[in-house]
Amino acid sequence: MVTTTAARRRQEAKVRYDAYLAGCPSRQLLELIGNKWTALILAGLHNGPQRHSELARHIAGVSQKMLTQTLRNLERDGLITRTVTASVPVRVDYALTPLGHDLQRVVQPLKDWAEQHMEQVLTHRAAQPGALPEAITI
Amino acid sequence: MVTTTAARRRQEAKVRYDAYLAGCPSRQLLELIGNKWTALILAGLHNGPQRHSELARHIAGVSQKMLTQTLRNLERDGLITRTVTASVPVRVDYALTPLGHDLQRVVQPLKDWAEQHMEQVLTHRAAQPGALPEAITI
Repeated sequence: MVTTTAARRRQEAKVRYDAYLAGCPSRQLLELIGNKWTALILAGLHNGPQRHSELARHIAGVSQKMLTQTLRNLERDGLITRTVTASVPVRVDYALTPLGHDLQRVVQPLKDWAEQHMEQVLTHRAAQPGALPEAITI
Repeated sequence: MVTTTAARRRQEAKVRYDAYLAGCPSRQLLELIGNKWTALILAGLHNGPQRHSELARHIAGVSQKMLTQTLRNLERDGLITRTVTASVPVRVDYALTPLGHDLQRVVQPLKDWAEQHMEQVLTHRAAQPGALPEAITI
């Protein structure tokens, strides 16, 4: 927390969040929004609502559990809506909220950066002493 | 992989990366660069090199193991440099590379977004049926 007079004044209306503080909820939010599944879900919903099954197909390799959990977290935080249509079988659609669209604009460059700079990163990895270019671990 | 003629031509010089593909290395890179510790380290090094101990102090609550592992991954990928000065005790400094500075510009908005929108997200969480405002899990 910044403790200048200006910040203190602002605290009457609003708390200051600082992800450098271990206990600050913004650090946990940063973990959710930086999550790779979040980035892929937001990018997938950018052009319009999608059904659960469409998202699962689109995001290759995501487990059912991880997809469901991430969607739940995003819904809880007001970033996506979940609409259930009483048909047979039941239809579930996900869509970005205005806040989700706002976040998508911030997260999209991360996915783009990873795709655009992969070559440079792999070149650097291969140049490491004792590097195995195939061995990509994080 | 996109298999249009244009993309195929481009593949002679350069591979296309797509984080939607389970086996694409860019998905693993996305995981590293979206990591909250990465965001906090890059933001910490934005204004100049820092010693290991400074970073550890700055990023409250990070474990020694997690900090070391993240720094190693960032160094391996050419995003930071590690400079060892033979003094007593040995001094280790970390600094952003040009590629690291480039990534920092993309990651910083994520940290800012989390801090700036925390209030809205918490309000939304508290409005959930059966929500406990204190229970923040991700």
